Amino acid sequence: MNIQQIIREQHLGLLFQQGSFGLEKESQRVYADGSVVTTPHPSLFGSRAYHPYIQTDFAESQLELITPPNKKLEDSLRWLSAIHEVVLRSLPEDEYVFPLSMPAGLPAPEHIKVAQLEDQQDVAYREHLVNVYGKNKQMVSGIHYNFQLDPDLIHTLFKWQPRFQSAVEFQNNLYLKLAKNFLRYQWILTYLLGAAPVVQDNYFKNGSPLKTGQYVRSLRSSQYGYVNAPEIKVSFDSLEAYANDLEHWVKSGKLIAEKEFYSNVRLRGGKKARELLQNGIQYLEFRLFDLNPFEPYGINLKDAQFIHDFILLMIWLEETADQQAVELGKEKLFTVALENPLAETQFRPEGEYILQQLITMLEDIGVESARIIYAKEKLAQLADPSKTLCGRLVHAIEDDGCYQQFGAKLAQRYKQQAFERFYALSAFDNMELSTQALLFDLIQKGIKTEILDENDQFLSLQFGDHLEYVKNGNMTSHDSYISPLIMENKVVTKKVLAKAGFNVPQSVEFRSIESAVANYPLFENKAVVIKPKSTNYGLGITIFQQGVQNKEDFAKAIEIAFREDKEIMVEDYLVGTEYRFFVLGDNTLAVLLRVPANVIGDGKHSVTELVAMKNDHPLRGDGSRTPLKKIALGDIEQLQLKEQGLTVDSIPAEGQLVQLRANSNISTGGDSIDMTDEMHPSYKQLAVGISKAMGAAVCGVDLIIPDLKKPAEPNLQSWGVIEANFNPMMMMHIFPYQGKSRRLTQHVIKMLFPEMP
Amino acid sequence: MNIQQIIREQHLGLLFQQGSFGLEKESQRVYADGSVVTTPHPSLFGSRAYHPYIQTDFAESQLELITPPNKKLEDSLRWLSAIHEVVLRSLPEDEYVFPLSMPAGLPAPEHIKVAQLEDQQDVAYREHLVNVYGKNKQMVSGIHYNFQLDPDLIHTLFKWQPRFQSAVEFQNNLYLKLAKNFLRYQWILTYLLGAAPVVQDNYFKNGSPLKTGQYVRSLRSSQYGYVNAPEIKVSFDSLEAYANDLEHWVKSGKLIAEKEFYSNVRLRGGKKARELLQNGIQYLEFRLFDLNPFEPYGINLKDAQFIHDFILLMIWLEETADQQAVELGKEKLFTVALENPLAETQFRPEGEYILQQLITMLEDIGVESARIIYAKEKLAQLADPSKTLCGRLVHAIEDDGCYQQFGAKLAQRYKQQAFERFYALSAFDNMELSTQALLFDLIQKGIKTEILDENDQFLSLQFGDHLEYVKNGNMTSHDSYISPLIMENKVVTKKVLAKAGFNVPQSVEFRSIESAVANYPLFENKAVVIKPKSTNYGLGITIFQQGVQNKEDFAKAIEIAFREDKEIMVEDYLVGTEYRFFVLGDNTLAVLLRVPANVIGDGKHSVTELVAMKNDHPLRGDGSRTPLKKIALGDIEQLQLKEQGLTVDSIPAEGQLVQLRANSNISTGGDSIDMTDEMHPSYKQLAVGISKAMGAAVCGVDLIIPDLKKPAEPNLQSWGVIEANFNPMMMMHIFPYQGKSRRLTQHVIKMLFPEMP
Repeated sequence: MNIQQIIREQHLGLLFQQGSFGLEKESQRVYADGSVVTTPHPSLFGSRAYHPYIQTDFAESQLELITPPNKKLEDSLRWLSAIHEVVLRSLPEDEYVFPLSMPAGLPAPEHIKVAQLEDQQDVAYREHLVNVYGKNKQMVSGIHYNFQLDPDLIHTLFKWQPRFQSAVEFQNNLYLKLAKNFLRYQWILTYLLGAAPVVQDNYFKNGSPLKTGQYVRSLRSSQYGYVNAPEIKVSFDSLEAYANDLEHWVKSGKLIAEKEFYSNVRLRGGKKARELLQNGIQYLEFRLFDLNPFEPYGINLKDAQFIHDFILLMIWLEETADQQAVELGKEKLFTVALENPLAETQFRPEGEYILQQLITMLEDIGVESARIIYAKEKLAQLADPSKTLCGRLVHAIEDDGCYQQFGAKLAQRYKQQAFERFYALSAFDNMELSTQALLFDLIQKGIKTEILDENDQFLSLQFGDHLEYVKNGNMTSHDSYISPLIMENKVVTKKVLAKAGFNVPQSVEFRSIESAVANYPLFENKAVVIKPKSTNYGLGITIFQQGVQNKEDFAKAIEIAFREDKEIMVEDYLVGTEYRFFVLGDNTLAVLLRVPANVIGDGKHSVTELVAMKNDHPLRGDGSRTPLKKIALGDIEQLQLKEQGLTVDSIPAEGQLVQLRANSNISTGGDSIDMTDEMHPSYKQLAVGISKAMGAAVCGVDLIIPDLKKPAEPNLQSWGVIEANFNPMMMMHIFPYQGKSRRLTQHVIKMLFPEMP
Repeated sequence: MNIQQIIREQHLGLLFQQGSFGLEKESQRVYADGSVVTTPHPSLFGSRAYHPYIQTDFAESQLELITPPNKKLEDSLRWLSAIHEVVLRSLPEDEYVFPLSMPAGLPAPEHIKVAQLEDQQDVAYREHLVNVYGKNKQMVSGIHYNFQLDPDLIHTLFKWQPRFQSAVEFQNNLYLKLAKNFLRYQWILTYLLGAAPVVQDNYFKNGSPLKTGQYVRSLRSSQYGYVNAPEIKVSFDSLEAYANDLEHWVKSGKLIAEKEFYSNVRLRGGKKARELLQNGIQYLEFRLFDLNPFEPYGINLKDAQFIHDFILLMIWLEETADQQAVELGKEKLFTVALENPLAETQFRPEGEYILQQLITMLEDIGVESARIIYAKEKLAQLADPSKTLCGRLVHAIEDDGCYQQFGAKLAQRYKQQAFERFYALSAFDNMELSTQALLFDLIQKGIKTEILDENDQFLSLQFGDHLEYVKNGNMTSHDSYISPLIMENKVVTKKVLAKAGFNVPQSVEFRSIESAVANYPLFENKAVVIKPKSTNYGLGITIFQQGVQNKEDFAKAIEIAFREDKEIMVEDYLVGTEYRFFVLGDNTLAVLLRVPANVIGDGKHSVTELVAMKNDHPLRGDGSRTPLKKIALGDIEQLQLKEQGLTVDSIPAEGQLVQLRANSNISTGGDSIDMTDEMHPSYKQLAVGISKAMGAAVCGVDLIIPDLKKPAEPNLQSWGVIEANFNPMMMMHIFPYQGKSRRLTQHVIKMLFPEMP
């Protein structure tokens, strides 16, 4: 079977590059000095019985972070980043994530705790490992790279190849070819990406085999790493042979289970090897990779892509390594792993030959040039070992002087970086902040999440068999469809609420300027609000707080409202302060006061300076990538200043409140102030009732309340509801300018999955 | 209290005209010859135990049609029209609604059946009436006009009047003034609008008191109508006096209950008169009005508005009639009722004086000129009795020769008119047809319905205490909010359906023309559909049924799709016929095949003529006011003809199918063909499952099926789902071009109110 030829002839270059990718990354939790913690796995991360993203590997201190499978490698890296941000922001204040594969500051073996899992078989397996390999070796961390070829590719290749009659057999053969060739040439990746040059002496049971000051390419991939006894040999010649060998070693007691076979390539698709004969190999797991300490999450996209290209080459190559070649490959790996990282490898010619072939393949299948350039850089590193990852790492460690301290410093820096935009999930920053906050909580608690449509903020969530969908952070199956339809229409909202007995200001609707103006006598001297029927964001609204004084003003306000909608309302004006109630189910979870954009004078700085100072607040930015918006100093603000006898250059007196906007929207620089604890509970109950009257599960209720401390009375002097909003904003409650944060996204999760522990 | 003065000084002219209106109209069900039916009240109208719109009055044959209260008189007339259309279309084929107040063709008394109500007290009351008044008088029909002043008006008037301390007392006094003045001048309305000039002799127990050929203005309002014994006098001087008198007559046994007091004005707001002292009079019921046989529904808007103006005048007048004047008014009514309709009334000067005042009032409060013009016409009728309603009616009856036959002919004509646009509810024709169909069923079954927003197709429905909201005919609380959000997004829809295990054609999404075109090799030679991610109505879709042959065509199709959306999909093309499944809850209620616009040749007519003939179909029209759309002969159709080697002038052979469109949308002239009974049940079950997977209660599922007779198999060769639609169209199923009608709106009602009998 000549794969190259089929791909070329059938124009499959693009399909060849499709696939599915998943990453698993181990790392130790450490204290500020880089020493491994002795604390339990943080309870914030829910239960390891089901957590899809945050697990422990061998030890209680050893995090295993798992991305879901993705069709795009970029997405796997984004998930890895997101999971890291969640972990780093959730760890106790004095804990960090160690960025290097070889652990530093290892506690005495008796203080290394095996992962406290619920499944007693899992615990027993770990205890077996301790007996066979000792605890220290188990503390080494690395990255596992899962890869699946596109089933369409396999299907198409099968169609065009002449040799195999069975599709499953063909598929197994293809993956076995990949596995064998990978094992044959894996040393090249360790040469280029190995990053475990050194470890503290207490790692070794019987004293370090390395001389003082000696560095190697990868202790982890060497005989001192996590490897089976040398006699455990398993054939990759055929799947049948593979299964037979594994079963033999387990039967003989040399392996406690098939999973104790630590090959750098694992065949995946069944719990036991024999199942693969039926099901076919579904994907491969490559376990070779050391953590890259220069990357906050242990690997970068370019290297991950290079690994993908290398994997593809293993299929592309005309020959397939036989078992002898596989064993030769393993030997070469052991050799290269212990080479001096700053010296050339003895296998340089073979490496250059293979990377040349890689470049030819990339050109052949028509990848973007950046990938070819990167492959060429890697090729050049065979001649210049100081450019390899390990070469650079050794220099960095040398510069620092101490391995543990070097790792500790990086661990601290990466944790600090993860807090820079603490309200965001950097990797998903093109989604809404509320969806980012929800994703954060979902990852933390261990709800299996799929992003169905990123632009559309559409997620699917799964816990056990229970499936839910969420759009825009809080639109779910718990709301009835009619409820947003009611809220979308202010007239209908008012009628529904009035029917249900809530205090609603009276209003009259009009469909033409003429009819509205003709009804002017109905509103003369009345305090009213004129507003479009459906638009939001305060557009087209005029308030006559002191009563409509003349027909001209009235007509103008009517005209302004009609600019925004084909129908408008003239509504009785209610006296009081507007509060936003965030209702979820039977509870008002947050109450917010929104204050129009403002600064307070200090007798020293100008308005421009005061605004700049206020805008320095970490929550303020463009208002979409930040919870709050920077105050502008445009025409509207300057007009507002003028009404107060000020300009942007005025220096307001100490304590002087300078209002920069009339409207209180957060989107025009307003302040958000949490008032949940201050609000009298009677209003919170009312808001829940209002939400329920509209069939809503999640609702933003706007109440006008003159005195938030007095209990609600059943009349419009005490309170009135002026609006109800579906998909209400959450970020202003989660990250208010003043007052307590209310983590609403956690409540959304609880609502959807009440069965979660 | 000078009401005029307050209204003038406080500019209350507009508020004065606000109010609430309700109509109740009695009429006899009759056979084609105008004789009263002996059949039971049709069971189609649900139960009279709760029906808010369709009741029976005294007799089983006597319909009482009731409009809900409305702020606008127009709306009351619209409801009256709608209820009539429902009744006329629901009656047995040989039954009609008699358009005149005085019944014709009365059965012998023993064959007149008292209304068979569930409440035994109601039946007993009717039997009491038979004993006191005889059956025939009870068979007379009329219109009752309910009117409430705007509470704001009463409130404002109260504020400015000096006399009353209590708001309730003021309100009662105001309504009593209105009642008394109305009773004083009611004869004017009977002069103008009386329409009961004659009746057949067998109406009278002891022979007719009228001479042969004698006509009167209103037998119904005369002593021969439905009046209490002359000694039953009840004071309107004060509410206290009114309650005392009524209680006295009930106690004495002269009245069986307060409701047996047949005043032409009833005080409303409590079950007993005494309750009004506490609650205040809430509104008045005016019972004076004969059916206008020239109007299909017994009254027209102009007269209804004139009655409103007359009522307002009764408040506006400076004086208030005392009890003596009230009795005088009743006497004058009796006199006028029996006057010759073609002769001047003896009270002409008083009538002219009052109508002059009416005109002055209308000018004062600033009504639109049409109302003033109409009042002036009425004024002129005092000088020209032939122009009065009764004057015109007498001429018409004379022309016809026979009262019963005259009524029967009109009854037939009105029933026929009600069928002209049988798929619509004429009065609500600015709403969607599906909402009209739903309204029809709601009125028929007796669900209390309020139109919350006409433009927005928003209804509230109530049965007992159970409240539901419906938008656009089938958007309800039964759908979960996430379900339309899923369906709105084709990518998400596919992912959700694939997750749930349904056959979904594979697809790839793209966000730029470049990336889509770069992926051309993935689709080369594949049969695919290229479509925008979210738009509907078939816009931007290209189908490569034979496989994509070259990059240029592919790129062009991509570009077309991107005109409609920022994201597009390239989807595998499925072979088969597309069917629309209408799913509600656990059932597929209808399956429809949509056939592109076409005509079939007859060897005689040209395409233009064939199209014109097909467009003659009663269901075809503009497509919004009709269930089907007329076929156009525009550029697209002519291009389609050209591809078949035809022009609009070609004469296709007999049986030749001429296709005029490629797309099957009903909105471009397509045919709708019901296939519910033909479709194999396995596909109907699948459609239900698909709807449920998306959390939908109502869903339009589009399946591609090669053979609708073969049971479904779990592969894309057997079937595939290509789309799911929330708020699916109903009219094409209710009124298909071919095949059985499926009354989906009734199922929507059943879904919302499963407790309904």
